[in-house]
Amino acid sequence: MLGEPSGPHDDDKPHEECGVFGIWNAHDAGAMTALGLHALQHRGQEATGIVSFDKQGSGFHTHKGLGLVGDVFGDARIIGALPGHAAVGHNRYATTGATVIRNVQPLYAEFEFGGLAVGHNGNLTNAANLRRALVRRGCIFQSTTDSEVFIHLIAISLYSSVTDRLTDALKQVIGAYSLVVLTQEGLIGVRDPLGVRPLILGRIDQPSENGLETKPSWVLASESCALDIVGAEFERDIEPGEIVIINDDGVRSIRPFGNQAGRFCVFEYIYFARPDSVLDGHGVYEARKRIGVELARESAIEADVIVPVPDSGVPSAIGFAVASGIPFELGIIRNHYVGRTFIEPTDQIRNLGVKLKHSANKAMIEGKRVVLVDDSIVRGTTSRKIVEMVRAAGATEVHMRISSPPTTHSCFYGIDTPERGKLLAANHSVEEMARLIGADSLAFISIDGLYRALGRPEGRDPETPHYCDACFTGDYPISLADIDENSRARAPVLVSEAS
Amino acid sequence: MLGEPSGPHDDDKPHEECGVFGIWNAHDAGAMTALGLHALQHRGQEATGIVSFDKQGSGFHTHKGLGLVGDVFGDARIIGALPGHAAVGHNRYATTGATVIRNVQPLYAEFEFGGLAVGHNGNLTNAANLRRALVRRGCIFQSTTDSEVFIHLIAISLYSSVTDRLTDALKQVIGAYSLVVLTQEGLIGVRDPLGVRPLILGRIDQPSENGLETKPSWVLASESCALDIVGAEFERDIEPGEIVIINDDGVRSIRPFGNQAGRFCVFEYIYFARPDSVLDGHGVYEARKRIGVELARESAIEADVIVPVPDSGVPSAIGFAVASGIPFELGIIRNHYVGRTFIEPTDQIRNLGVKLKHSANKAMIEGKRVVLVDDSIVRGTTSRKIVEMVRAAGATEVHMRISSPPTTHSCFYGIDTPERGKLLAANHSVEEMARLIGADSLAFISIDGLYRALGRPEGRDPETPHYCDACFTGDYPISLADIDENSRARAPVLVSEAS
Amino acid sequence: MLGEPSGPHDDDKPHEECGVFGIWNAHDAGAMTALGLHALQHRGQEATGIVSFDKQGSGFHTHKGLGLVGDVFGDARIIGALPGHAAVGHNRYATTGATVIRNVQPLYAEFEFGGLAVGHNGNLTNAANLRRALVRRGCIFQSTTDSEVFIHLIAISLYSSVTDRLTDALKQVIGAYSLVVLTQEGLIGVRDPLGVRPLILGRIDQPSENGLETKPSWVLASESCALDIVGAEFERDIEPGEIVIINDDGVRSIRPFGNQAGRFCVFEYIYFARPDSVLDGHGVYEARKRIGVELARESAIEADVIVPVPDSGVPSAIGFAVASGIPFELGIIRNHYVGRTFIEPTDQIRNLGVKLKHSANKAMIEGKRVVLVDDSIVRGTTSRKIVEMVRAAGATEVHMRISSPPTTHSCFYGIDTPERGKLLAANHSVEEMARLIGADSLAFISIDGLYRALGRPEGRDPETPHYCDACFTGDYPISLADIDENSRARAPVLVSEAS
Amino acid sequence: MLGEPSGPHDDDKPHEECGVFGIWNAHDAGAMTALGLHALQHRGQEATGIVSFDKQGSGFHTHKGLGLVGDVFGDARIIGALPGHAAVGHNRYATTGATVIRNVQPLYAEFEFGGLAVGHNGNLTNAANLRRALVRRGCIFQSTTDSEVFIHLIAISLYSSVTDRLTDALKQVIGAYSLVVLTQEGLIGVRDPLGVRPLILGRIDQPSENGLETKPSWVLASESCALDIVGAEFERDIEPGEIVIINDDGVRSIRPFGNQAGRFCVFEYIYFARPDSVLDGHGVYEARKRIGVELARESAIEADVIVPVPDSGVPSAIGFAVASGIPFELGIIRNHYVGRTFIEPTDQIRNLGVKLKHSANKAMIEGKRVVLVDDSIVRGTTSRKIVEMVRAAGATEVHMRISSPPTTHSCFYGIDTPERGKLLAANHSVEEMARLIGADSLAFISIDGLYRALGRPEGRDPETPHYCDACFTGDYPISLADIDENSRARAPVLVSEAS
Repeated sequence: MLGEPSGPHDDDKPHEECGVFGIWNAHDAGAMTALGLHALQHRGQEATGIVSFDKQGSGFHTHKGLGLVGDVFGDARIIGALPGHAAVGHNRYATTGATVIRNVQPLYAEFEFGGLAVGHNGNLTNAANLRRALVRRGCIFQSTTDSEVFIHLIAISLYSSVTDRLTDALKQVIGAYSLVVLTQEGLIGVRDPLGVRPLILGRIDQPSENGLETKPSWVLASESCALDIVGAEFERDIEPGEIVIINDDGVRSIRPFGNQAGRFCVFEYIYFARPDSVLDGHGVYEARKRIGVELARESAIEADVIVPVPDSGVPSAIGFAVASGIPFELGIIRNHYVGRTFIEPTDQIRNLGVKLKHSANKAMIEGKRVVLVDDSIVRGTTSRKIVEMVRAAGATEVHMRISSPPTTHSCFYGIDTPERGKLLAANHSVEEMARLIGADSLAFISIDGLYRALGRPEGRDPETPHYCDACFTGDYPISLADIDENSRARAPVLVSEAS
Repeated sequence: MLGEPSGPHDDDKPHEECGVFGIWNAHDAGAMTALGLHALQHRGQEATGIVSFDKQGSGFHTHKGLGLVGDVFGDARIIGALPGHAAVGHNRYATTGATVIRNVQPLYAEFEFGGLAVGHNGNLTNAANLRRALVRRGCIFQSTTDSEVFIHLIAISLYSSVTDRLTDALKQVIGAYSLVVLTQEGLIGVRDPLGVRPLILGRIDQPSENGLETKPSWVLASESCALDIVGAEFERDIEPGEIVIINDDGVRSIRPFGNQAGRFCVFEYIYFARPDSVLDGHGVYEARKRIGVELARESAIEADVIVPVPDSGVPSAIGFAVASGIPFELGIIRNHYVGRTFIEPTDQIRNLGVKLKHSANKAMIEGKRVVLVDDSIVRGTTSRKIVEMVRAAGATEVHMRISSPPTTHSCFYGIDTPERGKLLAANHSVEEMARLIGADSLAFISIDGLYRALGRPEGRDPETPHYCDACFTGDYPISLADIDENSRARAPVLVSEAS
Repeated sequence: MLGEPSGPHDDDKPHEECGVFGIWNAHDAGAMTALGLHALQHRGQEATGIVSFDKQGSGFHTHKGLGLVGDVFGDARIIGALPGHAAVGHNRYATTGATVIRNVQPLYAEFEFGGLAVGHNGNLTNAANLRRALVRRGCIFQSTTDSEVFIHLIAISLYSSVTDRLTDALKQVIGAYSLVVLTQEGLIGVRDPLGVRPLILGRIDQPSENGLETKPSWVLASESCALDIVGAEFERDIEPGEIVIINDDGVRSIRPFGNQAGRFCVFEYIYFARPDSVLDGHGVYEARKRIGVELARESAIEADVIVPVPDSGVPSAIGFAVASGIPFELGIIRNHYVGRTFIEPTDQIRNLGVKLKHSANKAMIEGKRVVLVDDSIVRGTTSRKIVEMVRAAGATEVHMRISSPPTTHSCFYGIDTPERGKLLAANHSVEEMARLIGADSLAFISIDGLYRALGRPEGRDPETPHYCDACFTGDYPISLADIDENSRARAPVLVSEAS
Repeated sequence: MLGEPSGPHDDDKPHEECGVFGIWNAHDAGAMTALGLHALQHRGQEATGIVSFDKQGSGFHTHKGLGLVGDVFGDARIIGALPGHAAVGHNRYATTGATVIRNVQPLYAEFEFGGLAVGHNGNLTNAANLRRALVRRGCIFQSTTDSEVFIHLIAISLYSSVTDRLTDALKQVIGAYSLVVLTQEGLIGVRDPLGVRPLILGRIDQPSENGLETKPSWVLASESCALDIVGAEFERDIEPGEIVIINDDGVRSIRPFGNQAGRFCVFEYIYFARPDSVLDGHGVYEARKRIGVELARESAIEADVIVPVPDSGVPSAIGFAVASGIPFELGIIRNHYVGRTFIEPTDQIRNLGVKLKHSANKAMIEGKRVVLVDDSIVRGTTSRKIVEMVRAAGATEVHMRISSPPTTHSCFYGIDTPERGKLLAANHSVEEMARLIGADSLAFISIDGLYRALGRPEGRDPETPHYCDACFTGDYPISLADIDENSRARAPVLVSEAS
């Protein structure tokens, strides 16, 4: 399943594959989780689900649906059917196959020791191998998600405690994963040994019901913006390779993989994370603005106006404008009212394409030398259309500045990117790219400039690069077990059910 | 899950729990299966599914849905998405839990050796025990159906061929089951050692595509009425304990359980099967008519008119009328236009209840002595309302005649009956029942009369009774493993997911 | 719109075009109306609607929907949103155009004097003329139904009282109509001057809320079967040309058209009405049985078994069997589980056609001389398939007996029949018809035999025929204004909106 | 209906009530209209509709639906069912009653002279009076929209040409209206005598089908942004009181009301129109930015950061930042993923309220003196929550600057504002308002400042103010016929149908 073309989502942006949220010891845990998932909506819009646990006896409760969090959980009766003081939730961005409800997380199963729900953000690089072995052993897969591998590994583990079984399972998987796990005994958070995907811990201090003592609520979330919406305080990032076990006694931490330097995904700063999140010690908005500043320094240009490609290009463009002294203007307007289905163009109007989302603010562009600031170029199709639109609106020059280095490699750690052959930067020089997208000039931030903007004045240290930047450098920090094999013979998809 | 009150379906009739259909070597196998399921619609109306197999390379295809066959498979695109020359299908009558799509059959799974789909009519009496053991071993259940037990037993079997794995699985289950199984190698039909549930074999002789030789299509179905609709000829009943393996070489039969006298469900004749089906050598309509004749002999009464309770009482009433010489009239009219949801009565009109389905044809009833002929009395609530309605329409006397013996025991072999405490005949004498339903007289056919009507002039032989008649006699021919245990402690439901 | 081919409903049966129901002074008037419409479901299954009136101040309330009564009104909240002590309802069988919600009755409008809702069963023969004139005057039509003409004529009438305005409107329309009209002042029932379509009056005597005095509820309905379901007593038929005005003072009657002999639709007895209804003094079931008796006398035949074409042929077949002494058997089984959408056959199985609804009960047919009894032959397509099916099931002879005279003319008074060119009997002799449908013999009841069966021993009196039998005789008792003009130039459809 | 509280939309912003679009002589007129409506989505999101006209003979075609343009017209089959070379469309923002499909525009009716479709942006101030008179005359209303009054006035006009009938109708209505009207003879655009609501004309020059001559397509739209998306060039604003008649001969203009100085709605610049539109000679984005500049001049304040309330506050904030020299930052992040239904908060989390849409970007706010720039204060509830959120994020001072004068009066010309009693500025001084919303300081732009920003250096001329600014000044340029009467007795709603 890895490296597949992304099909319906082939719209020239990398896509985050998921957001996770968990909460322990909260009134309205189901409602709180819905709010948290709403704040994480940008990490996945195709489906969403919540599993709650009610220790008062009614056990586990699940609701999942296709669509936005507000649509799936907008009915008070649905929230009311998720009772309990603990819950985990998941937003899904589907990368392969039809988005069927079987694939929507959290996945839930009943074991001998009780129920267990898992939400997973990331991607396993040996999932196909593991799946084949599990099927050979007699395991029946319900879904086509990598994440189900965790469930079966836990089920067949010979250890007795949930934590030991989970650790046993984690030792067999390779890949990038941030997990939230809910059992009747506690809420568990896991970040893979390199901490590629984010996971943070928050707490809500609240009076207990009798008003005497105070047991906090604990929150796990992909990003800190999900803490704010539920009124939680940021406590800390879960560390790479750390497992936190949260129950009424508090938060306990184990590190089955020992200590290891992390490789947090640098693209979270560039594009995925919400600007108001703080991840791995850096505010995302500030990071983007500093990237813009750095970019302006590296590739200054004379121009009349700095125009962001909305919405993700805005902070970098502000930084670029400040550093360059050139005015910042919203020269491109984004139409946010795009329905769930979209107007299917007839042949005649197909080439109006990108204009459904963006339109040129002609008055700010006409007769001007325009610097466009965007976050990345993947296939280049969108960039070409944007440049064309800006030129049609009367720009005399169009210069494109990109707040990331050229994307030359695919991601196998949980981001939906096209295969290498379709990455513009994998096959063309910057000059060729400029010509292909029709820009008068094109510049990317350098990899060292990117590290500098993220607070590493010395740039990228090739020995211990601190971030996972494989999409820019090809330096994959986690082995690509399935991929390597795929170069010989493609791993068969073992479950093809289409219902 | 066994012996549960039937919840929303609590409307005073036993309910068949499923119909199955399979076809091998047919153009339009998916469409043919939809037709077959349509003919078997009376065996289950809540959900339906088809799995087809396309040996040309596209593999297995599934479509399932809640509702009638015509609704779920009414769109040509859906049928078009079920390509291939072989298919199995299933109609479901849900007896427990919410009818969720996960529980809709055929169940499908990918194994090491390839895909396999199973449709099951019947009920396992050791399913809870097996399930517990399988979960302990690390198996993850997707559904709450008994039928999934087959899937896991096949998955973990150490044998290598599909047939051996299936046989291995069958040797561990106890219960009533007729199965249709589809693999890439063939279509398999299975009937449990006592042949409690029906399964028949049909063939369609057809010219091959080049017109030279003729390879037949083979059909498996719960009842022969499903053969007629697809133009197949009745070949034979699958025998109790027989496994038939159908592929392009023809039909092969194995009998892993040795030879054993069968115990076909006698209630199929009385109520479940469609009147135009022929099962176990008897036409259902004729059998019902003969039961009516026998009933008239056993419990003659002076009256003016014989009125069937529609629709199932009609053939017996015709037999009763012929034997008694009393005119047959449609004195009760059934309204067939009952929507999927039903008018929810307000308090004031709640007692109009049964009148939504039935109405008295006053002109045929007023001033007359009426004999009502019905097939069974379960709780008695419907009978009471029918008698009351007929009396309100002006009948001077109302005599109830029932074409089955008193239903004194619950069924654990695939029929949805209330628990014993709710069976009117389990707790009351016939005289008490007559009083409770308000009839001037009440008579059931005797168990020997029933056997006579089915061609056994000597009546029921208690040593080898030929039919399963446990609901009338309490003589359960298959051990009730879960039930026995349940008398001590109820087997927990292991999967409680509600999505 | 008249005389159009019936499009999707082209299934070889005439179709009733509507059922109406009204109630005054009843608790739960909305729920009672839903029940009444459920009992009238056979008169129209495509859409249904209710308008209630709450004199306590909340005014008029409407709910309409496509589908069966049970589906549209199955939710208690919907019934709860129809408060008040009076209501009118309508079942629609759409004959032209898409069934859009705008066309679903009762139609409702606000006038200067207040609200008014109308439900209409029948067809106006000068609707196109009237519509053209009204549009010329500036009236805007909302729907494509004939019935809306009533609304506009009432709106523009210069009289002041509702009754006078209604009478004014009625004097301008030509056609067949039974109306139920609800205003804040009362419930009004209208039957056209010849009383072609049925309308009956019932009452429910009930204690008033304080238990002292008794004011009855009054019910209007297309058929008496709708009285039974709400517990009302049959009071009388509304007379041809009568207007009844029902309010808290009781029932008042006016006859603006003077006295005139009626021409009730004879086809109501043959096919449309429910067997348990009593119309114009005759029980429908008995009438059908007597027709069967008369038919057996007129066209006796040696045979082994009398088989009805279900469901409408059953009473006549019983009569035929009694009169002929040949046994009655259910030799054809009808599948009542036909979903809302229907299995779309592929080319290969398209000729399985009619078998989706009917199947032969082979055991009752094989080797026998069969008399099939059906109610009518319209196009002949169904008859041909039925004969073919019965022959394929092994009948040695197939004789068709029809409980109506040959249908040689189209109906323009509210029954959906094909245009004359498509009526088999309009273009072929009985012998040709027998050959075309493949029967060994074919006989229809004579027109005099039909009248005898309906209690006119002298047969049909051509001067005062008592019934409208235009479809058999071409004797149209109401002028066909639009049709006559259509022979010159087709009346344009004035509203073509498709939303 | 006027002056009602806005019910479900009561979220503290005025709401535009509609967008209109029309096109003549275009291939794919239906698809082009869908695109145009998509670009006008910000003017109404609750429902949308298109009527196309096919002069090739298939006449008028309609499709309407509730929801966004992309959802309603996202299916190619729906667009395919809107054939023809001309079309009109409408986006609706419902202000009163349930949004039922009957009320969705364009309204369509068949007249003696043929079909006519009308889309209306605005509000009539004598609609209730006219409606009452029309009902008295016998007109039946289908909808509860003011717009239907146009239809009936056209229908009953004694003139013969469409243009004369339309002019006749316009002379009877009072209010604000921009209309697009489609007949088989042409596309008509109308702007009310004062030109309160916008309407612009565009053209697409295209080769004819034979490539020889060139007949342009003509476009009418509420805003110029709808021209860009379909590739049309801006031609000119329709003038106040102008009627343009577009057909294959070109564009003809009539001015039945003579020449009059216009009063274009100034709020279009402040909030409603899309930033990339040019209206009445001013680019909207630039106008907002100049307002921000003017606002900074009028109410300068020492601060660390200028933060817009997204999205409408952004251009003014940029202007404010430029003028003040204080840095501009996105200190508030808007979550654009709000589903159609919304998470219903439990009691505990209800006060998280506004945070579902907005979140504070803490890193940009903490420890800073913040100037918030927003476009208006209506009830003040949102402002209070925003200030509270910013303060909670650590702002040391919060100063609110508003890019419009205080909203002291309700709008009766097509904008959904609360009644006066609920307008914060109608009842409180600026100082009180600052206290109520919790800001350290609060300032609005002056009315003269607003006019200066819009290119009138002398400020507002009370004699000929150029704009309609009634919401700020109470100077209503069009008489409020219904409102004046309503002060005595409220106009009854004449159609209350709820289906």
